Amino acid sequence: MPITATVKSSNPDVIALDAMGGDAAPAIVVNGAALARTRYPDIKFIFFGDAAQIEPLLAKHPALRACSELRHTPEVISAEMKPSLALRQGRKSSMRLAINAVAEGEASSVVSAGNTGALLAMAKFVLRTLPGIDRPAIATLIPTQTGETVMLDLGANIECDAENLVQFALMGAIFCHTVLGRSEPLIGLLNIGTEELKGHDEVRIAASILRERPIPGRLFGFVEGNDITAGTVDVVVTDGFSGNIALKSIEGTSHLVSHFLRQAFDSSLIARFGYLFARGAFKRLKERVDPRRYNGAMFLGLQGVCVKSHGGTDAQGFASAIGVAHDLVARNFNLRIAEEIAAQYGINVAVESEPEGGQ
Amino acid sequence: MPITATVKSSNPDVIALDAMGGDAAPAIVVNGAALARTRYPDIKFIFFGDAAQIEPLLAKHPALRACSELRHTPEVISAEMKPSLALRQGRKSSMRLAINAVAEGEASSVVSAGNTGALLAMAKFVLRTLPGIDRPAIATLIPTQTGETVMLDLGANIECDAENLVQFALMGAIFCHTVLGRSEPLIGLLNIGTEELKGHDEVRIAASILRERPIPGRLFGFVEGNDITAGTVDVVVTDGFSGNIALKSIEGTSHLVSHFLRQAFDSSLIARFGYLFARGAFKRLKERVDPRRYNGAMFLGLQGVCVKSHGGTDAQGFASAIGVAHDLVARNFNLRIAEEIAAQYGINVAVESEPEGGQ
Repeated sequence: MPITATVKSSNPDVIALDAMGGDAAPAIVVNGAALARTRYPDIKFIFFGDAAQIEPLLAKHPALRACSELRHTPEVISAEMKPSLALRQGRKSSMRLAINAVAEGEASSVVSAGNTGALLAMAKFVLRTLPGIDRPAIATLIPTQTGETVMLDLGANIECDAENLVQFALMGAIFCHTVLGRSEPLIGLLNIGTEELKGHDEVRIAASILRERPIPGRLFGFVEGNDITAGTVDVVVTDGFSGNIALKSIEGTSHLVSHFLRQAFDSSLIARFGYLFARGAFKRLKERVDPRRYNGAMFLGLQGVCVKSHGGTDAQGFASAIGVAHDLVARNFNLRIAEEIAAQYGINVAVESEPEGGQ
Repeated sequence: MPITATVKSSNPDVIALDAMGGDAAPAIVVNGAALARTRYPDIKFIFFGDAAQIEPLLAKHPALRACSELRHTPEVISAEMKPSLALRQGRKSSMRLAINAVAEGEASSVVSAGNTGALLAMAKFVLRTLPGIDRPAIATLIPTQTGETVMLDLGANIECDAENLVQFALMGAIFCHTVLGRSEPLIGLLNIGTEELKGHDEVRIAASILRERPIPGRLFGFVEGNDITAGTVDVVVTDGFSGNIALKSIEGTSHLVSHFLRQAFDSSLIARFGYLFARGAFKRLKERVDPRRYNGAMFLGLQGVCVKSHGGTDAQGFASAIGVAHDLVARNFNLRIAEEIAAQYGINVAVESEPEGGQ
């Protein structure tokens, strides 16, 4: 008898928002939702958080107010709270109840700018992984010389075995295919190039597995740290320790260069004069690498879409994170993963429709 | 009876050069040596390589020729050769004989722009580690917002245990102290910040060991990828896998931003006009982050100074690598490490002077 796995098809237009997460919450959440609605007029929101703070903010956006529901939650997960504690004691928090809304089929996705560790722990516990996926991974888009690359895992799993890496590769490739519309994504395994027997065992084993399996993309092979921003591949696959270090090294370097650039332009009157002429070009450059454009780390591999916004973002950045959640749902990303995994492991996939809607 | 370890004190002014390593060898090696001599007039060189190619190049620099010895070597280690093969078959190569010159006390240091893996394997085999140091590490300086940070390991050791990391921390701190002149260097262990039980076991154990030992510096604690270029600490300690990925992610991002900057300035006539005014400032910025300034990865922890220049560098970059070797020798770096390790583990250190000279 074949094994059957179920993928929930929830109300696709409803997004649950943790209104209390993020440095400037709830204002960035409400204003971000208002901005996102101008891009996706069909979205409806459920805000979870302190009604006394949120209601006046929503009142400033009548169109948003009309398509939103506000649910008062008495508790907030702080940025410092340990994930295990958040899991035990945060059952009535805005974060937890927003995630619950996805598990219960009220919303198709949840977006939070709160505590990453707590969000991940709760999302894993409440939503569970997709059939055939052992562990969720954190993924994000990174700007490159040729466009953008998706990298995962960025910190959900400090240690990964080869099979975890293979599953990350599949999820990354399906993301590129369904969300970015790339027909045959190139997959690279992050490694180092200076040693004879290159890299950790699990990276080499993952490469040999991927070479043999029919994958929704093409294995490029190993890539090094500089290949991430060079755009050598569409998907960079790594464990959460290396991925987090690579991501933060990239962020740090881009801060360093901005710092040096400001200093260079401030160094003389003539340099400042030059800046006046070049500022249009700089504005475009800034827009191109704007971290707000790339805001929205996705927790892939869960039975429900969960997007983590940067805690320090503004309304525009939060709107981007909502956009990421919207796209993942609209392109049936989770269903495509379940189908791919099912095809690889011989599992039957059933789509369970919620009474309110369906895809 | 106390254990006694010996640290060789070779002729400090003589540097052995692998003249055949690097994309544009031997020209960059000879021209780099000529440049280095203008900074350090006391240096003498032994060139190892193809005499027929090197002699005409040296002839163009009479002052350099006068203080240099040329030893013909029939073999060259190619950039692609596997380290194990280089070790077995390259006994008459320019790289190997240059390293031998350090082991035999003829030279105080060796500089090569050749195959990194082969150089490391040969240097480990020929020079051996310093007493009390289990494994050598590759270290380099990285530009930061506040100056520069030393990071190690960058790829010599894919897997490290806690004691290796502790030894890397000691070596990095002594480097900061003796070569950079920083009195109480701050040490950070590279880690990630998104999980409750942060990082790999060995990183956490290393932190607890460093907290208890009297170290030549101060433990800051854990740092993340973005702290490297922020200059949060003086020394960033990590295993060779993570360190290599961080270094190459930093290099890749700085390429990406240069690429975007060029595009921005080329985007319109007015932007190009702006560049004309700002180009002085840009030139200074470029000089500040010039990879040639930071050329010279050091193999720390060996009984002899070995510096690896980037393979694609030019004469100026090679001269920087020679400068790094010179500074390590002039500041008695290896002796300081041996003394520190001896103090920590209760080993006696004897300095064995070579007949030709001594420090």
